Amino acid sequence: MKKYSFYNDYSEGAHQSILDMLSQTNLVQEPGYGLDSISLEAADLIKKAVSANVDVHFISGGTQANLTVIASILRPYEGVIAAKTGHIAVHEAGAIESTGHKILAVESADGKLTVDLIKSQLTDDEHMVKPKLVFISNATELGTIYNEQELKEISEFCKQHDLYLYMDGARLASGLMSSASDLDLPKVAKYVDIFYIGGTKNGALIGEAIVIVNDQLKKEFRYHLKQRGALLAKGKLLGIQFKALFTNNLYFEIAKHANVMAEKLTNGMKQLNIKFLAESTTNQIFPILSNDQIKKLEEMYGFYVWAKVDENSSAIRLVTSWATEEKMVDEFLSDLKALV
Amino acid sequence: MKKYSFYNDYSEGAHQSILDMLSQTNLVQEPGYGLDSISLEAADLIKKAVSANVDVHFISGGTQANLTVIASILRPYEGVIAAKTGHIAVHEAGAIESTGHKILAVESADGKLTVDLIKSQLTDDEHMVKPKLVFISNATELGTIYNEQELKEISEFCKQHDLYLYMDGARLASGLMSSASDLDLPKVAKYVDIFYIGGTKNGALIGEAIVIVNDQLKKEFRYHLKQRGALLAKGKLLGIQFKALFTNNLYFEIAKHANVMAEKLTNGMKQLNIKFLAESTTNQIFPILSNDQIKKLEEMYGFYVWAKVDENSSAIRLVTSWATEEKMVDEFLSDLKALV
Amino acid sequence: MKKYSFYNDYSEGAHQSILDMLSQTNLVQEPGYGLDSISLEAADLIKKAVSANVDVHFISGGTQANLTVIASILRPYEGVIAAKTGHIAVHEAGAIESTGHKILAVESADGKLTVDLIKSQLTDDEHMVKPKLVFISNATELGTIYNEQELKEISEFCKQHDLYLYMDGARLASGLMSSASDLDLPKVAKYVDIFYIGGTKNGALIGEAIVIVNDQLKKEFRYHLKQRGALLAKGKLLGIQFKALFTNNLYFEIAKHANVMAEKLTNGMKQLNIKFLAESTTNQIFPILSNDQIKKLEEMYGFYVWAKVDENSSAIRLVTSWATEEKMVDEFLSDLKALV
Amino acid sequence: MKKYSFYNDYSEGAHQSILDMLSQTNLVQEPGYGLDSISLEAADLIKKAVSANVDVHFISGGTQANLTVIASILRPYEGVIAAKTGHIAVHEAGAIESTGHKILAVESADGKLTVDLIKSQLTDDEHMVKPKLVFISNATELGTIYNEQELKEISEFCKQHDLYLYMDGARLASGLMSSASDLDLPKVAKYVDIFYIGGTKNGALIGEAIVIVNDQLKKEFRYHLKQRGALLAKGKLLGIQFKALFTNNLYFEIAKHANVMAEKLTNGMKQLNIKFLAESTTNQIFPILSNDQIKKLEEMYGFYVWAKVDENSSAIRLVTSWATEEKMVDEFLSDLKALV
Repeated sequence: MKKYSFYNDYSEGAHQSILDMLSQTNLVQEPGYGLDSISLEAADLIKKAVSANVDVHFISGGTQANLTVIASILRPYEGVIAAKTGHIAVHEAGAIESTGHKILAVESADGKLTVDLIKSQLTDDEHMVKPKLVFISNATELGTIYNEQELKEISEFCKQHDLYLYMDGARLASGLMSSASDLDLPKVAKYVDIFYIGGTKNGALIGEAIVIVNDQLKKEFRYHLKQRGALLAKGKLLGIQFKALFTNNLYFEIAKHANVMAEKLTNGMKQLNIKFLAESTTNQIFPILSNDQIKKLEEMYGFYVWAKVDENSSAIRLVTSWATEEKMVDEFLSDLKALV
Repeated sequence: MKKYSFYNDYSEGAHQSILDMLSQTNLVQEPGYGLDSISLEAADLIKKAVSANVDVHFISGGTQANLTVIASILRPYEGVIAAKTGHIAVHEAGAIESTGHKILAVESADGKLTVDLIKSQLTDDEHMVKPKLVFISNATELGTIYNEQELKEISEFCKQHDLYLYMDGARLASGLMSSASDLDLPKVAKYVDIFYIGGTKNGALIGEAIVIVNDQLKKEFRYHLKQRGALLAKGKLLGIQFKALFTNNLYFEIAKHANVMAEKLTNGMKQLNIKFLAESTTNQIFPILSNDQIKKLEEMYGFYVWAKVDENSSAIRLVTSWATEEKMVDEFLSDLKALV
Repeated sequence: MKKYSFYNDYSEGAHQSILDMLSQTNLVQEPGYGLDSISLEAADLIKKAVSANVDVHFISGGTQANLTVIASILRPYEGVIAAKTGHIAVHEAGAIESTGHKILAVESADGKLTVDLIKSQLTDDEHMVKPKLVFISNATELGTIYNEQELKEISEFCKQHDLYLYMDGARLASGLMSSASDLDLPKVAKYVDIFYIGGTKNGALIGEAIVIVNDQLKKEFRYHLKQRGALLAKGKLLGIQFKALFTNNLYFEIAKHANVMAEKLTNGMKQLNIKFLAESTTNQIFPILSNDQIKKLEEMYGFYVWAKVDENSSAIRLVTSWATEEKMVDEFLSDLKALV
Repeated sequence: MKKYSFYNDYSEGAHQSILDMLSQTNLVQEPGYGLDSISLEAADLIKKAVSANVDVHFISGGTQANLTVIASILRPYEGVIAAKTGHIAVHEAGAIESTGHKILAVESADGKLTVDLIKSQLTDDEHMVKPKLVFISNATELGTIYNEQELKEISEFCKQHDLYLYMDGARLASGLMSSASDLDLPKVAKYVDIFYIGGTKNGALIGEAIVIVNDQLKKEFRYHLKQRGALLAKGKLLGIQFKALFTNNLYFEIAKHANVMAEKLTNGMKQLNIKFLAESTTNQIFPILSNDQIKKLEEMYGFYVWAKVDENSSAIRLVTSWATEEKMVDEFLSDLKALV
């Protein structure tokens, strides 16, 4: 029996305020398929938070969001540029290809795209897939983030080259609340054509909010949702969660907690002279430990061994969340200290 | 402001026992993607209820279940036979075709398939789609049900002709609890290759349980789930609901309530000499009213006008659920009586 | 050993002028993929024949043309309206569904669509496939044709309802050269958004010419061709055939021959008081014979038994072509007379 | 006006013996869709040449062959491993992804796969695409070839790991006739599950012969052909070409000529101390020239500039074919000598 799990940020259930709202609204009769009053309220709260004339649609999970969004944008021969570590390129079991589209995957050490990396994929050879969409994650799958200047450069390049820009926000809350971030929701909406605000990994039971900024991408989006099996009959389940999360700044407050816990882990380990695979300021961190230390830690804690570094050591992944208990962070550091 | 909605069986939230279990298990750390202890328990409860060596997978909704199941079974040139009123043939926005497969839709007055109707679609012309799967719903989209003899005949015909048989169980609880039904879960599992047990329309917030009976269809099914965006990170949300529903026979008890409420409506209307579009013994009924009566009822109650019958009258659809209040049924009948 | 085959219009090879041009140009080095000088010339000849500013692309066969065209036009949730007898709805092994799109098939006694039939399929329910394209064949799969008034009405209705109109021209030559036709290529181009001119069934070895009239459908069409495996390396094979066919009116002259042969068969059989399944003025005819007559004819001639009419009789299909020999038509009529 | 084109091996038409057979059989009536007597004969000739109990299907081109074969084998979540330079990974405009499948592309300097490269892609993580098919080309897109030992090792590894092995034989003739090759058709059939014999790039007007060795992959393959638009009505056009090519060893004789011409070019350039990008013993060669030399050569000859080597020089691609005239090879070498 392990003491605690740092496996991921979806190990627990939902923030209490979500459960409360579920109970309070449980027996109110509402229209189905996301047309209920609570989903409409939640969408309005997000529009306010984004400060732009956007369309908002709620959906069950990240892979579903990615496949529905990407397939809604591309013509059959068009493809999507992504970092090789991008979630769509690795951990979606071919969901994007299943909708008919190639992912043009680019090597990137830190999980981020740059204008140069995007440029390297452009072509107008009609025997090749035509790049039309750029996929970025913020925070990335390696815990890194984009700053405003980087995002602005990519955005401008995309506009110049008739490319759409899409941000996967599975961990957007943690990304925006990073102490190193100078971005916020209105700035994200300013630079990208479409993005999603992740709920599952930040306090919801389920749910992501797709935010469509570019008018050209808004048309008949609900048909896409329906066709992909993503239009829930009891759509208010999704609306309730985002209403709760976007009330009293809850969404950002709890992400901040996750980041603070990760920072505490990071600082504690740095004091033990532990190195890291990547510089993360978000809720995923990648310390490098000896195989022996890892073996002993695994008896006490849950986490993934992420990547082999050399014969004797590997990077592990520790993930914190809105629910991570500070005392367990302390205990982990204390247990680790005993092994170093 | 209307008094009450008979629009559908997904107008409310979840049965209280589900909300309770959600709260109780909320902060227990669990593995993701349906590998949590509660989902495993729920699957075991269903295996017991089905009395067969089946695989069980939980999924968000019915369209998602249908597209994932059907696409998992068929080779590219194979198609699925369904009644023209079948959910997949009408109300899934082309979800099945989106996975590459033709639906061979057959006219059927009562929403049911028969051996003869299935036979009419068979062909081995290599210029045509090859039928490989038969899709039936129980209860059907018109509220009708299959009895054991009918299901047995279809099942035997399918086996003889190398066809798989799939039952859409969005309203399986209501179908099996119909006073006219001689089927139960073990019998369903005996006759079909794969089916799903609907939760959304019978007390869950969200969720259907796919039950794979035929060993040939079990292999690597979780890959399909992942690829279709159907593998929820917090899969325990689904497990919790089916654990609650399959504890103390709750799933069937609440479906019985829905049926009793529909029966009460039916009997009350028959006393008023009202005719019906179809003979339903489940939770959807289709009384035929004059356009004038409909107009007045619509001011007080929510329901769909289903089909025009002649210049002066139409069939409406009334749907009851686990949450339908008996006093509202009485009030509806009383209000209707005043209009006749 | 049978005397002659009336099975279809692709039983023989190519018109001699095509073989001659193949030989003459065989060793001239040319660019690949349809960018050769002969394909460009052929496209110009077609543009002149059509009298409109169209794009022309050559492709191997009819199913390939249909799937490439339809998939190039539709967004994922959009569908195509067709007669139930339409080639795409029956004899393409699900090629259209394979690209993700539903065919909304409408009953039609004579293989033709009308404004009323199209209207019956329109809907803006986001749970259903959205009709966006209308598919018609001319001549139809039953040998019938559209006149200008009929085509004009459909065209206007499509424009009013934001639908594209596509004509499958596998047997366009026979259709336009029908004695009952008041259409020609420029009129077709005036009324439809996109169509194809069939070569395979009218004197070519292989090849159809896709003609895109509507500017909105022209963009990057060659990418679609490439992706569907339809861009032939030695594209000049296709160009040569259409250059030959559109030189000296050959395409229409040889279609006229096919029609005259079919008319001769029809008239000869009418003199024998034989009835027909449909009134065809093109190169497919459907006489109704007794089963006994059919059995004896089958020993001498090749043809398909098309549809059972009653216990004692069936309709057969006789197809003539540019290569049908008049003496075999005479012999067939003489042999049939002996059986009546 | 250029003197000669070394652009590719599909710049000309067909070998004369194909044109002759086309003329001789032109007016013989035959069944359609590849069931004609000539296609059956051609298939028999290939079966003899392969010395195995294979199924043979003829198809128009290489991209069509690749997409039809690959989509016929894989279940939705399965993918295909290929070298990053593989034709399917680069120059098919996403044809494979269009059928729903991911290509797992591996870096390879010489265009070949090895057991180690294949092994690097294996995974059984259900969140990732499952590799099920290995795609190799022989000759490769870089002109290199597999020897028997290499092919045997890959074949054995695939069998051990439940992977199918598919060989793209667009340039199989040139590959097998390479002076460095110890493979022949029966050996290829011994080691792979399915492959195709390329006609278009070796003397045909059009056409590839898909050869299915593994019984499991044979079932109902013609349905796949039909659905992909690949079943030509006048299928005998394809049969004729392979009958001609597999009569009197023509297929291999003319490939040998192409290789000899390439070898002559190679040897001539080596005498001029010219280096090569890759060691090719087939009909594609990649000499490295100064940008100045290239510019002058381009005024006289057609060829592609393939890859930048450094600031001052690039590799060009010269392709020879069955039709390459020896005097033009001599003239090219002489013109080049004057530039060195």
